[in-house]
Amino acid sequence: MEPIAIVRSCFTDKFGIPRQAGLVPAATASLEMLPPYNRPEAVQGLEAFSHIWVFFIFHQAVARGWKNMVRPPRLGGNKRVGVFASRSPQRPNFLGSSVVRLEEIVAEGSGVTIHVSGVDLLDRTPVVDIKPYVPYSDSPADADNGFAPPPTSSLDIIFAPEVLDFCQHYEERQGRPLQQLISQVLTNDPRPAYHEDEREYGLTLWDVNIRFAVHGKTIMVKSVRPL
Amino acid sequence: MEPIAIVRSCFTDKFGIPRQAGLVPAATASLEMLPPYNRPEAVQGLEAFSHIWVFFIFHQAVARGWKNMVRPPRLGGNKRVGVFASRSPQRPNFLGSSVVRLEEIVAEGSGVTIHVSGVDLLDRTPVVDIKPYVPYSDSPADADNGFAPPPTSSLDIIFAPEVLDFCQHYEERQGRPLQQLISQVLTNDPRPAYHEDEREYGLTLWDVNIRFAVHGKTIMVKSVRPL
Repeated sequence: MEPIAIVRSCFTDKFGIPRQAGLVPAATASLEMLPPYNRPEAVQGLEAFSHIWVFFIFHQAVARGWKNMVRPPRLGGNKRVGVFASRSPQRPNFLGSSVVRLEEIVAEGSGVTIHVSGVDLLDRTPVVDIKPYVPYSDSPADADNGFAPPPTSSLDIIFAPEVLDFCQHYEERQGRPLQQLISQVLTNDPRPAYHEDEREYGLTLWDVNIRFAVHGKTIMVKSVRPL
Repeated sequence: MEPIAIVRSCFTDKFGIPRQAGLVPAATASLEMLPPYNRPEAVQGLEAFSHIWVFFIFHQAVARGWKNMVRPPRLGGNKRVGVFASRSPQRPNFLGSSVVRLEEIVAEGSGVTIHVSGVDLLDRTPVVDIKPYVPYSDSPADADNGFAPPPTSSLDIIFAPEVLDFCQHYEERQGRPLQQLISQVLTNDPRPAYHEDEREYGLTLWDVNIRFAVHGKTIMVKSVRPL
């Protein structure tokens, strides 16, 4: 398999990436097509679809290898299941698959870039295929969630005033809805299954480091620093 | 990428394979796990899910190579779109993905076999990954079908009396619902977009060759022969 595209994503670090695609609508990425797959003809007609499949390699998992059994976060991190009963990156062949919203296809000069949202893709991820999402085949009406029901969040979020100021300026300069992205990422609770309350965590989105802590049911976004 | 399993499927020939997974519920297959992936632990917990993703290589497409543009059957076979706007097997990396119903997981001795239905998988297809289907992530509520709306069939089917006899005996001997499978495959109209009415076609399902022709809106199943 060889890469057909490279991901440029808001998730420049693994911590904070949503557990599945679609959970953070404000999470955007672009797929930069690589030669010889960067000809506009190769994506012609794709714009007719609202969503697309992105198939990729969990490139940061390769060095650690695969495991027969894993501890999915949805089971609290303390129960093991088979790797094929999970979507863990530590899997044979390290193949990832995400359905994302297609925002725009830009073809200019020799470059083709596909802009998408709702991603759970790490920056610089190698993409090995792109296909249209076809609901009548990809959404079986009677499919159930097994041990992975939709996550629910009861966390509220509070931003420190200087964080709000920074986000507003960042959005004006960069055109990236940073505050919304922080809010959606944190209300999905990116902390590991085993965690201490009150502990301060750092998270990187785009080129910004965000410090937060959870107190009871409230997330406090304490500070932001450009990297 | 290396195979983790091999498909044993009712589709022993490419002609007749449904255009997408899920269209032919009677189409069954088993995924025979290969060493070192054939340990029961590796699939433990998968039985909690009703549907699974099967990722595979379009192995019969590799020799022909990939194309920048293809003619999808859903556009009548006369309009071209980019390969990434299609699910054509003639694609870079030759990666296939199908959601199928999980029927049963059988682990005995050193073997693990996963029985599935609703397949669009060719016999002997190499499988490179298996994952649970998770509706909240894999079924975006607002996804639309682009240029691939659900197929509708207005074809009726008539079986010659000797075909019905054969199917009944075959089902008793092999435990395979052959008549139902023939019916579901043919009402999806497997003929190429350009076809002549009245022409007789041959189709192979399991180890049986089936001859049929379409007259107006009626499919006539004329004969069956064991291979």
